[in-house]
Parts: sequence; structure tokens; C-alpha cells
Amino acid sequence: MLQINRFYGVHNMCRFLAWVGEQRYLDELVQEQEQSLVIQSRNALIGKTPINADGFGLAWYSDRETPCFYKDTHPAWSDANLKQLAHHTRSRLFLAHVRASTGTATSRNNCHPFGVGKWSFMHNGQAGGHDQIRQELDSMIPAHLYGHRMGATESEAIFLIAHGEGLDSNPIGSMARAVGRVEALSRQCGSLPYMRFAACWSDGKRVFAARYASDRYAPSLHYRTSDDGIVISSEPLDADSDGWVEVQPNTAIVTEGSVVSIHAFDPSVKREPAKVA
Amino acid sequence: MLQINRFYGVHNMCRFLAWVGEQRYLDELVQEQEQSLVIQSRNALIGKTPINADGFGLAWYSDRETPCFYKDTHPAWSDANLKQLAHHTRSRLFLAHVRASTGTATSRNNCHPFGVGKWSFMHNGQAGGHDQIRQELDSMIPAHLYGHRMGATESEAIFLIAHGEGLDSNPIGSMARAVGRVEALSRQCGSLPYMRFAACWSDGKRVFAARYASDRYAPSLHYRTSDDGIVISSEPLDADSDGWVEVQPNTAIVTEGSVVSIHAFDPSVKREPAKVA
Amino acid sequence: MLQINRFYGVHNMCRFLAWVGEQRYLDELVQEQEQSLVIQSRNALIGKTPINADGFGLAWYSDRETPCFYKDTHPAWSDANLKQLAHHTRSRLFLAHVRASTGTATSRNNCHPFGVGKWSFMHNGQAGGHDQIRQELDSMIPAHLYGHRMGATESEAIFLIAHGEGLDSNPIGSMARAVGRVEALSRQCGSLPYMRFAACWSDGKRVFAARYASDRYAPSLHYRTSDDGIVISSEPLDADSDGWVEVQPNTAIVTEGSVVSIHAFDPSVKREPAKVA
Amino acid sequence: MLQINRFYGVHNMCRFLAWVGEQRYLDELVQEQEQSLVIQSRNALIGKTPINADGFGLAWYSDRETPCFYKDTHPAWSDANLKQLAHHTRSRLFLAHVRASTGTATSRNNCHPFGVGKWSFMHNGQAGGHDQIRQELDSMIPAHLYGHRMGATESEAIFLIAHGEGLDSNPIGSMARAVGRVEALSRQCGSLPYMRFAACWSDGKRVFAARYASDRYAPSLHYRTSDDGIVISSEPLDADSDGWVEVQPNTAIVTEGSVVSIHAFDPSVKREPAKVA
Repeated sequence: MLQINRFYGVHNMCRFLAWVGEQRYLDELVQEQEQSLVIQSRNALIGKTPINADGFGLAWYSDRETPCFYKDTHPAWSDANLKQLAHHTRSRLFLAHVRASTGTATSRNNCHPFGVGKWSFMHNGQAGGHDQIRQELDSMIPAHLYGHRMGATESEAIFLIAHGEGLDSNPIGSMARAVGRVEALSRQCGSLPYMRFAACWSDGKRVFAARYASDRYAPSLHYRTSDDGIVISSEPLDADSDGWVEVQPNTAIVTEGSVVSIHAFDPSVKREPAKVA
Repeated sequence: MLQINRFYGVHNMCRFLAWVGEQRYLDELVQEQEQSLVIQSRNALIGKTPINADGFGLAWYSDRETPCFYKDTHPAWSDANLKQLAHHTRSRLFLAHVRASTGTATSRNNCHPFGVGKWSFMHNGQAGGHDQIRQELDSMIPAHLYGHRMGATESEAIFLIAHGEGLDSNPIGSMARAVGRVEALSRQCGSLPYMRFAACWSDGKRVFAARYASDRYAPSLHYRTSDDGIVISSEPLDADSDGWVEVQPNTAIVTEGSVVSIHAFDPSVKREPAKVA
Repeated sequence: MLQINRFYGVHNMCRFLAWVGEQRYLDELVQEQEQSLVIQSRNALIGKTPINADGFGLAWYSDRETPCFYKDTHPAWSDANLKQLAHHTRSRLFLAHVRASTGTATSRNNCHPFGVGKWSFMHNGQAGGHDQIRQELDSMIPAHLYGHRMGATESEAIFLIAHGEGLDSNPIGSMARAVGRVEALSRQCGSLPYMRFAACWSDGKRVFAARYASDRYAPSLHYRTSDDGIVISSEPLDADSDGWVEVQPNTAIVTEGSVVSIHAFDPSVKREPAKVA
Repeated sequence: MLQINRFYGVHNMCRFLAWVGEQRYLDELVQEQEQSLVIQSRNALIGKTPINADGFGLAWYSDRETPCFYKDTHPAWSDANLKQLAHHTRSRLFLAHVRASTGTATSRNNCHPFGVGKWSFMHNGQAGGHDQIRQELDSMIPAHLYGHRMGATESEAIFLIAHGEGLDSNPIGSMARAVGRVEALSRQCGSLPYMRFAACWSDGKRVFAARYASDRYAPSLHYRTSDDGIVISSEPLDADSDGWVEVQPNTAIVTEGSVVSIHAFDPSVKREPAKVA
């Protein structure tokens, strides 16, 4: 395990997984796997924060235009509602997240996934000097989206800034630009590490995920394709790592039906900050 | 309103509604009606306790054998999860409840509906001298069902005692016997009112409801049939009371498809206490 | 009650009280009065929102330099911890608040009182168009205080802006300037009512309170002096209103020992916005 | 660490500490030690359950006749109220507990310490077959104390049964009898381990603690005396174990002023079950 830590670095802060494919009950992935997300909440194998007990969240797509969110502040392993909902809810596309706070309060508003319209987003990572840059981060959020600023995490801010960069038309490029802008802020502030970023987001049809860091320690990210769908996860859901593919740093993936395509994810491209309307 | 109170008595403690029929989104009844359950949680029109803010709960039937429960301790009007779940969940049969505690703690374990296997149950009312009879009430619960005794309410106890009385084979008679046994306990204890009872329970196919009191003040209970299903509710969901039928005291109703049948509900029949196995 | 409402207007959103004087147990004022704060949380007599059940908070001063805060999101009447703490805590200066949300989430971070260093602050009121002005409000908060921006209420923002205006050296003038700056923002936005404001704040020695509105409907504010201290409260704590003095609109009060002094409170003075460092 | 586990057994489920002596701020022991209780909640060194995140509780004695309780269901490390209260509360006698559930729900009612009148009690351990014996356990609680039965833990039941056995007149013997009676129930049920028990209880003047198991694996228990008082704790609060004394199995300790006396603690004495009045 030390070796794994040395490889991935010491700041894997949260855990998440996403499913897209045939309809599945959420608990098949969230609770019943050998290294399920709930087990990861008590005992993550990769990363130095084995406990992810500062809240959790689910987002699943059904027949409404928006996803359904369920979030709470208790550890995932002890929440009776989570067990009930994951057992009874079936979806072709869902996101699930367990949180280990890097400083902001344990509050429903700080739990992932976050949502705007059809979009959902969840994140594992951090921006250096978050406490120092929070106000500037807030001011980067487009005014028409500020009503969606519910909490105080950099995660939510990155998501809302990505919206302003054109998430609908360019789901990967806009996210890279948002990450780049926040990283630039961290660099000005001078707090290392500038940016650690693994995230997963969806419009209800495709799932996007990306892995990046300003240093060598990009948070872990894996996926596995099978006959009935694709799982994307912070760490493999079973000890047998066969079939699990590690997403490389500076890389994004997109699911399109049962196909996963690989894309560059480069937040470091120099650019002018986008105008905030 | 005083007149209504005089008629219904002063101890209407909770509010509930149930739906059976075509699939409906829960929020169509729980949130969007003129006098929806969430509005009742702030401002019940019938009864002397206008505020029902000591927790709430939902139970809905989907494809699993058991219903799905979601309960929490916040006021129904402010719970973001409730809003999300009710907006995105569609079911052909669901129960919803807002609680006004008559003494026991505000705790998820004390929130209705309660469940055992395929059965769900919710209640508005009280048993006299609950504090004095609680231990005997607990001892009345069949041993094999005690693992389902999660909280401290008389409501949950009545439900579990009814199970022991044969809920599966005689859903109305067993409930009447359970209510009768608990009322007998209250009478021994001598605390008025001995029994006020309005309840709703389901096996996932039919919905049962009953109204009874040991005095003149049986808690309110109404239903309305329409083309696509049946609503059962503590109070009419719109000001226009057309179409709403008041269930009479000492009466139970059963839905069978789109038909409501009326039955006697008589807990006062003298009988030996059933043996608890 | 209608008449009272007509007089005070329709937007009294929260309830609070403060005590300064001899050491008193908190529950003597928070729970045991005829119209105690906990009773006001269920049944406020003045104002159109009788239910204040979206969280509560306490701040009391003891031997530490900072006050102690206890906040939670449940209704005040059902929180066992509140009952315990109020029964066992004795203080010569404390603030207590019950919240009725005007839109922002029910979250500990949105519960009053708020604190920075030795200062505590609680508020009843609103700024028009809060959703539209929130981002500008956030940008008005001095950078070095942004770490104290925990929630999303205008109340907390006003408090932090007042800090930037010099709360330590001019506790009333700085608050008036903060209220004026936020009112100016609301006026630009054009959402009525621009500003309704009743608040209470303390440095651990003196208690300050002020009442103001941009229209005729300043939220209610009263105080009563007695041999052993001074109570400041949204509404009188007993039906016998003898001894209760109504604070007039555009007025602030300051306690200095057992003396209450009256001051002008005029946020409408034209001035340049203070520079945010 | 494996060796430690082998020694102490695999079922150290919770962590607690108590202080009696000069007035101390709670956070000096609960948060600020090298291996403070809050650190133990994330990373207990002794025992197989390193995470104790299923709620916590404090009880402290001040000027009232009863102790003050503060309990909540979040992990101790993330509760802002706990941090506030522990920082501002000073007491000459307090108990603190972090919980790792062995099955019963995460609920305030299941959090330790428990209280009746002047007494407080907290526990680390388990009774074999708790699910099977719960109803009999409930029936063992004296009727006049059943109103204090708030939750579903065997811990609370043992405490209330001890009351019935004469806690006031014989604080150690009554506890031993209660533990013995519950162990006898577990033996009838046949579920191993019959009894693991480390507990700490107080009448506001003295602190009692005991360590016992029906097998070789009594939960850990230590204490340290110093000039200004006595700490009793599941595990030493600093790496330097100097000064820490391990309480031996089958042993109880009592503080009387600054003196710790050692007593036999023998639940296995054969006796008739006490009559429950």
C-alpha cells in the first residue's frame, strides 16, 4: 500500500464511481462489490485518506429532464436512507460520491455530485490555497449561474466556471479551461499543490471523466467496460484488477454508448480568462 | 376552524396521504396540491396541531419485493432530498407522512411509515398513557418481529402487534385486534384518551385505512376516487371538497384496483389477548 | 393579530433575543417564559411567519475570548441538545435565534448568530433581490474576512461587511454603513422591499441592536430593563407588555452596564462605498 | 499493532475518556492530545475497529444537579458544535465517548453517555446475540426506569438494569450484577462472545470504571493520575505510555478525590435474577 501511495501521491481526498449502460440497481455497484464505494468510504486502498466519511451523494437519471440528487452528511456506511434508495433505484446512468473534506464544512451543500439543469458533476482533488482564493473563485462564477453556488467547495466552483466556458457545446474543453483558470489562481496564490483533479460529469447521455495534476500526483481514475455498460471509478471495485483500465494523467474519457474514447485534457494551455457575463 | 376542531377533537397529531392507481410522481400529491402534504406540514387545517414538523417519511413500491423508505427528521418543507426524490420518483402505490410528535423523540427511527417485508404502515393518533405502558407494549411485540422494533412510538408497536395477529391473512381484523389490545392496556393505565387511531397500511397491492377512537374524537380520514386511482388523506388536498369522502369512525376501507370497499373496524370486541409466540 | 401584522408588515422572518446582566441560565429566557423564544419558534405572535423552524443558534460569552456557538438545523422545540445546553449553561451575555428561511438552505452554516473573533451577530430581515445580488454581496466582503463566509445569507454578509467598515471602533456607524451599502445594491437590482433589518450584535461586553427598514415595515424589536439585566427581543416575552419598550425605526440601542442608550441608525446617508482591501 | 490486537481481542468497538479533578476545558483532553479522543475517532491504535464515527457524546457536571449531555450522530472530527462546546466548557468532571456501532442504528438515542438523574454512563463492548436478546433485555429494565429507555443499545440497558440493582448504594456491585444478568441472557442465547465490557460511570463526585469479559478479550482500559486530576481512557492519550496504568480484567476502579482505589469486578457470581418492580 505504501507503494501505491508513493505512486498516486498523498492527496486522494474522495472516492467516486459512475455507471452508464443497461439499467442497474445502484446498490450493485455502490454497496455490493468487493471494494464497493461504501467500503471505500471506510477503507480506501489507494491514497492516504482511507476514511471518506464527510458526506456522500448520488445523482441518477430517470425520465425527468434533470437528474435526481440525494446527499447527506453522515458516513455512507451508516445511512439507512442511502441503503434503501440504492436498493430500490435502477438507472442506466448514475454517479455516486463519498467525501473526505479537505477543509470546508461537512454540509449537504458541500456534498457531490453537483447539478445544473441536465448536468451533474463530481470531483476528487483540490486547488492549492483554496482558503486564500475562495473569493476570487466565487467571482469567476458567471453571474447567471451564481444561484447554483450552494456551498463553498472549489469543486462546485470549477463545475460552474466550466458551465460558463461552454459545457454544453464543448464538454471536455470547457472543463479543461475551468481547471486551468482555477490552477492559474492557485499559482498566483503560491500554494502547492496547485491543482489535483479527477472528475466525472454527465449530461444524462454520455459520461465524461478526466484526470490531471499540476504535479506528478494526479488522483487515481479507472474504468472498465463490460457487455452491459461502463463503470468509471476512483479505484477498481474488485481485487482482481483484470479489465480495469487506468486513465492516464492529462487524459479525458468519454462514453458514447458502449464505447470509451480517449481525449487529451490539457488545462495548462495559455489563454485569456473568459469573460464572465 | 374552531368548529372543525370541536368536531374532530383536539388530538390530530400527524398528517398522511396514500396513492394507489396509475403511476404518478410523488410530488404531484406530496407537494403540488393546494393543500398538499407539505403544506399540511406547515398549516394543517383540521385538528389543533397545525405544525407537523417533527420528521417525515415516504414509502413507495417499485419492482423490488419490499417498498423503499425515505425518512428524515427535518421539517418536510425544508428538506432538499425530499423535494428531489418526490420530483423524480414515480410509483403506482405510495405512502407519505409528516409527523407531529406527541412526546417521543424526533428521530428517523420514530418516523413513519414503518415497514416489515412487503408491508408498510403509517399512523395518526395516540394511545393514552403511552409513557406508562411502553414497556408492556414492547413485550406484546412477537419475539420474531422485535428486530423490527427500531423506535419508541406506539404506532410502530401497533403495527408489529398487528403482524403477530395475522396481518397477511386478515389485514383488517388483525389491525383491529392490535388496536384493541393496546387500547385495553391504556384503559388499565387509566389515561385518557384511551385510543385515537387513523392509519393506512399496504401490502404493495391494496391499501387499507381505518378510523377509530375510544371517544368521540377519531382523527380525520378522507379519500377520493378518480379515473386513474385513489387518494387517501388525513384531509382533502383541495379546498373544493367535492369528491372527497369522509371515512366514518369504526370503519376501514380497502382499495381493490379502482374500487373502495367499506368494512367494519371494531377494536372493542372482547377477546383474550393473543399469545405472543 | 391582523392589526399587528398591518402595523409591522408582512416580513418578520426570524425571532431572536439577547441577555446582558447577571449570570442567568439560558433556559430561563429561551424556554421558560410565557412567550419564550422556543414558543416563538412554533407560534410567533408578531409578524406573518408564525413558524421559525429552519434552524436555531446560541452564542454565549464565558471565560474564553470568543463566544461559544451552538447551532443546528432542527426546530428549536425538538432539539434535545438545545434543551440540555440551555438548562446547564449560565452566562452574563448571550444571544439566541430561531430561523425562518426566506429562501436559502436550511444548513448550520446559514444559522445565526454568526461570529468573528469576539463579535457575534444575529439578524431578522431581508435584502430585496437577494438571489440577484448575492455575488456582488460576496464581493463586498473584505478579502481578509472571506474565510468567515460560511453560508449564503445576506445576514452573514452584512455582518462581515460591517466588520470591514470598522465594527471595533464604531459599532453602530459601521453597521449602518453596511446596511446602507447592501440596501443600495438592492435598489440597483430593483427588488422590493429593499431592506428590512432588525439585528443584535455584541463584543462580549455591550449589546447593540438596531431597527430599520427602507419602507414602513421595520421588523419588530423590543427591550426591557430590570434589576439584574437587560433583555432585547423580537417580541415581548410575556403577554403583560408592561416594562417592554419598543425600539423605534431608524434607531439603535446600546447597553452599557445596566443602562440602555438610544442612538440614530441611519443607513441611508449618501457615501462612497468603502474600499475593500 | 497486530500484536496489540491479538492481546486485546478483535472487538474494541468504541472509545471513551473521563476526567475528574481540577476544572479543565474539555478540548484539552478531547481534542488537543497526541492521541486525543477525536483522533481516536479516526484512528484508534488499540482494537480492530480504527474508525469510531457513528456518533459521539459528552456529559459534564456543572452547578446543576444533573450532568449536561451533548450528543450527535456525525463523526466527532467534523462536528463544529463539538469543537465549540469542548473549547468553551470547563468542568471538574466529564465523560466523552466516540461510537462505532456494532449493529444498532446511528441515532442520537444510541449515543453514549446515557443519563438518569445525577448518573452518567458510557460503555465499550457488546453482549453476544444482542439482536436475539433485545426484547428480554428490555423486559429486565425496571418499569419505573423504562421512560429512560431512549434507544436500542445493550449499553443503555445495562445501565438501567444496574440502576434497578442499586447503583446509588452500591455503584460497583450493582453494575457487576447487571453485567452478569445480561451475560447470562447471552449464554442462554448461545452467541459468542457472551460479554465484553469496559465502562465508566459517575454520580458527579466519583468516577467508576470497570473492565471485564467472558473470554480473554476484555476491552482496553487505562488511567493516569496527575497533580490536578485523573484521566480514565480506552487508550493512552500520548505515545509515551509512562504514567498510564492498565486496568486489569475483572477489576473496577473508583476515584475518590485524587485517589484511585482498585476493586474486584465479578459479574459471574451466581445469583437469582433481581426482581423487577
